[in-house]
Amino acid sequence: MDERIRKQLDFSLEIDKEKNIFRQTSLSGKGRKENDAEHAWHMAIMAYLLREYSNEEIDITKTMLMCLIHDIVEIDAGDTYAYDEEGKKTQKEREDAAKERIFSLLPGDQKQELTELFDEFEEGKTAESRFAHAMDNIQPLMLNDSNDGMDWREHNASAKAVYGRHAMTKLGSEKIYEITDQILKKHIERGNLT
Amino acid sequence: MDERIRKQLDFSLEIDKEKNIFRQTSLSGKGRKENDAEHAWHMAIMAYLLREYSNEEIDITKTMLMCLIHDIVEIDAGDTYAYDEEGKKTQKEREDAAKERIFSLLPGDQKQELTELFDEFEEGKTAESRFAHAMDNIQPLMLNDSNDGMDWREHNASAKAVYGRHAMTKLGSEKIYEITDQILKKHIERGNLT
Repeated sequence: MDERIRKQLDFSLEIDKEKNIFRQTSLSGKGRKENDAEHAWHMAIMAYLLREYSNEEIDITKTMLMCLIHDIVEIDAGDTYAYDEEGKKTQKEREDAAKERIFSLLPGDQKQELTELFDEFEEGKTAESRFAHAMDNIQPLMLNDSNDGMDWREHNASAKAVYGRHAMTKLGSEKIYEITDQILKKHIERGNLT
Repeated sequence: MDERIRKQLDFSLEIDKEKNIFRQTSLSGKGRKENDAEHAWHMAIMAYLLREYSNEEIDITKTMLMCLIHDIVEIDAGDTYAYDEEGKKTQKEREDAAKERIFSLLPGDQKQELTELFDEFEEGKTAESRFAHAMDNIQPLMLNDSNDGMDWREHNASAKAVYGRHAMTKLGSEKIYEITDQILKKHIERGNLT
C-alpha cells in the first residue's frame, strides 16, 4: 500500500473514535445522549437543505465538510458543554494539541486543508463558517425543543446564557435566528429556561 | 413559521431516528455496533478525502450528499445485513414505502431532489453513485479489518459472498479495490473468512 493512501486510511480509521464522544444533547423521543459523529452528520444534511436561508452566498461543499469535521479534535479534547465555564478555560489548549496530532495523520496537503477548514470554523469570520455555526446551534435546539427542553432543565440553563450562544446564529442566518427566537420564547414561557 | 421551513425542519427532526438504526459492523477497538448516521458521516468524509481515487471524475458535493442520505429509508425499513438473503427478498418493497413517507415530509422540490439522489445511489449507474458504493464498502471493511475480522467471524461469512459484495468497489475505484483485495486475502489466510 503506498504511503499516501495508507495515511488517508489511518486518518479515516482514527476518526472512528468520534463516535464515542458524547454530547449533552438528548436524541429526539427523549433518547440517549447524542455523539459527535451523529451531530456532524445531522448538521451537514441540514446545511444542505437550509442553505437558502444563509445571509450570504455560500460554497455548500465547503460548508458541509466544515460541519462534518468541526468536532474531530474532541476525540482527544472531549466535549466541552456550551455552558461549562470552567471547561472553556482550557478548551483551546486541549483542542490545539488534538488538532496537531489528528490532522498530522493525513498527507501534508490534506493536513493543511483540513486544519485551515477547522480554524476557519473556529474563527467564524467567513460566510461558510457563520452558516455552519448556525447549524451547530439549530440542530441541538431542534432536538431539545422536540424533548420539551429537557436538556436545559437538566442543566438549569439560563435564558441569558442560551440567548448568548444563539446570538451567533443571527450572523449566519436571520431566518433561522427568527425561528430560534420563537422556540426560546416558548420555552421561557413554559419555565424550561429561567 | 412559514410552510417551507416548517417542512424542512420536520424532515430534519424525523431523520434523527437514523441514529437508532444499528448495523452489523462493530466500531474500531472492538466497540459496540455502529448506527446508520455514524456510518454515513464516516463515508462522506472518506469520499472527500479519497476522491482522487475515483475511476471517473465526480461531483464531490453530490457524492457526499448521497453518502449522507443513502440509508435514510432504514428508519422505517430497518438495516438489511449485506449477507441476509431472506431479508433481501422484501428489502425493496420496505424501502420504497419508507422513501415515499420520509421524503414527502420535505417541500416538493427537495422531495424530488433527494428521492432522485437516493434512487441514483441504488441504481449505481453514475460515477458518483459508483464511488459512493465504494465508500459504503470500504468504510465497514476498514473497521472490520481493524477488529481482526470479528464481524465476519460472528456471521461465518464466506470469502465468496464477501468478494461478491466488494466487486462493486472496483466499478467506483480500481485503487480502492486493490486495497480491498489485499485486506480480504489477509483475512482468508488468517481463517477469518472461509
